Amino acid sequence: MPASTSKYLTGDTAAINEFIDRFDVFLFDCDGVLWSGDHLFEGIVETLDFLRSKGKKVVFVTNNSTKSRQDYQKKLASLGIPSEVEEIFASAYSSAIYISRILKLPAGKNKVFVLGESGIESELATEGIPFLGGTDPNLRRDMTQEDFNGLADGSALDPEVGCVLAGLDFHVNYLKLSTAYQYLARGAKFLATNTDSTFPTAHSFFPGAGSISVPLINMTDQQPTALGKPSQAMMDSIEGKFQLDRARTCMVGDRLNTDIQFGIEGKEEWEAEDAKFVPAYYADKLSDLRAAQK
Amino acid sequence: MPASTSKYLTGDTAAINEFIDRFDVFLFDCDGVLWSGDHLFEGIVETLDFLRSKGKKVVFVTNNSTKSRQDYQKKLASLGIPSEVEEIFASAYSSAIYISRILKLPAGKNKVFVLGESGIESELATEGIPFLGGTDPNLRRDMTQEDFNGLADGSALDPEVGCVLAGLDFHVNYLKLSTAYQYLARGAKFLATNTDSTFPTAHSFFPGAGSISVPLINMTDQQPTALGKPSQAMMDSIEGKFQLDRARTCMVGDRLNTDIQFGIEGKEEWEAEDAKFVPAYYADKLSDLRAAQK
Repeated sequence: MPASTSKYLTGDTAAINEFIDRFDVFLFDCDGVLWSGDHLFEGIVETLDFLRSKGKKVVFVTNNSTKSRQDYQKKLASLGIPSEVEEIFASAYSSAIYISRILKLPAGKNKVFVLGESGIESELATEGIPFLGGTDPNLRRDMTQEDFNGLADGSALDPEVGCVLAGLDFHVNYLKLSTAYQYLARGAKFLATNTDSTFPTAHSFFPGAGSISVPLINMTDQQPTALGKPSQAMMDSIEGKFQLDRARTCMVGDRLNTDIQFGIEGKEEWEAEDAKFVPAYYADKLSDLRAAQK
Repeated sequence: MPASTSKYLTGDTAAINEFIDRFDVFLFDCDGVLWSGDHLFEGIVETLDFLRSKGKKVVFVTNNSTKSRQDYQKKLASLGIPSEVEEIFASAYSSAIYISRILKLPAGKNKVFVLGESGIESELATEGIPFLGGTDPNLRRDMTQEDFNGLADGSALDPEVGCVLAGLDFHVNYLKLSTAYQYLARGAKFLATNTDSTFPTAHSFFPGAGSISVPLINMTDQQPTALGKPSQAMMDSIEGKFQLDRARTCMVGDRLNTDIQFGIEGKEEWEAEDAKFVPAYYADKLSDLRAAQK
């Protein structure tokens, strides 16, 4: 029993036509909407082509911070989905855009300390943002007494770091967390690519980007600015890049507490009486939209 | 302006005598009370000797989970404080006591997966508790695809693990966090030696035991049972071991939100009107107690 404010599309050609006419831009959540694990849902490629043929802009939005847009394009291709790099908006890219175009760190304090993988580094490099940490092999080791001393007195720190960016880091360790903490304690801005507590893979759950940044939240009592769904900072980045009209933009997702909250800001349990985030339209599957094509 | 319910002892011999007569057991917080960093406060050894000469039981209580009691005795000795192992109550020991005497894991589900250092392993071994993880060199490495698969389908897990114990682990990594999570997701009990967010050392702060367990809290939405100050589980362990009378036991500490909360349970900001934790007695320094000795 969905709330009466949500319109059910499956099988209703008139409603589908109205839905498609109402929007110019379709932002797609990927895992769970276009595919699950390695399984591409039926009719997805055709539905995306159909939308493009109607002049709609299609954007693939993902919180996966370990991949650059180029990496993600390869992943889409491996699943059988053709795409342009410019159609991809991943949280690593969103973070780089936010730092370069919105945060605008001052000269002398414009380096970013990265907790994360190469996808973040690639996107920062593309935006011309200097960074350290990340995949630096020198940080993939045990803490020494010299590290404790050098981090405590600041001699092991780069005085030009003005921001810590935490994403999913498969190589997180005590040295990296300690270094990130020391930068934050000295006033660095705190950003997170996204705050998902888990990372779904291999049909199970593993620590997500939000479980890499949470020790720093715990230590500093500061919340990071999150650049993934459902943060409005990511929507600001997307809006800035594509110059889109929010009223004519549709977020297509499967999770109420990330995708739909991201798409609207207003009113969790969609079907419950006190639902906080209610989709405007819903369907059984994405390919139901092709009923309009005749 | 301390609250009127707190008695100031410094220089008041009658009050000191009353204070000392009222208690049989003195539980001492260590760092901040007996010493700071490497600096032993003036008159500490003499004050401890004075209390012992009056027949008082002295117990050194610490949240440091990386050290066994034997390790901690060596640390006290290095600072110039003579002690017996039996006078030491550290959170690793507290955790081992709690598991063996209170938690009583059933046969076939009685192994403990450890996130932590050798101090925890020593205390678990002393109590005859089987464990894995901890300082195992095989877990100090990068995650592989086989690890993702084996953790997801459970083939890399020991079915006899019934408990995850998280303490301060200088070698924390993605593999260990993922393994701990998978045990918790399969119903293992969740314990933490202590939940201090930071670990003070080298005149600065580093990630504490609470910042090792917090990703697991974030992922599971479960809170661990904490065995360090200010948890009452630690007080239960101390009470069980020493058969002490709580009414005649005094907690001597410097932090209101851990030590004093631990000592009493009742009424943060001691000097504020809405103080939650108020010490019964306070003094400028511990050695002020020796004014009673005449």
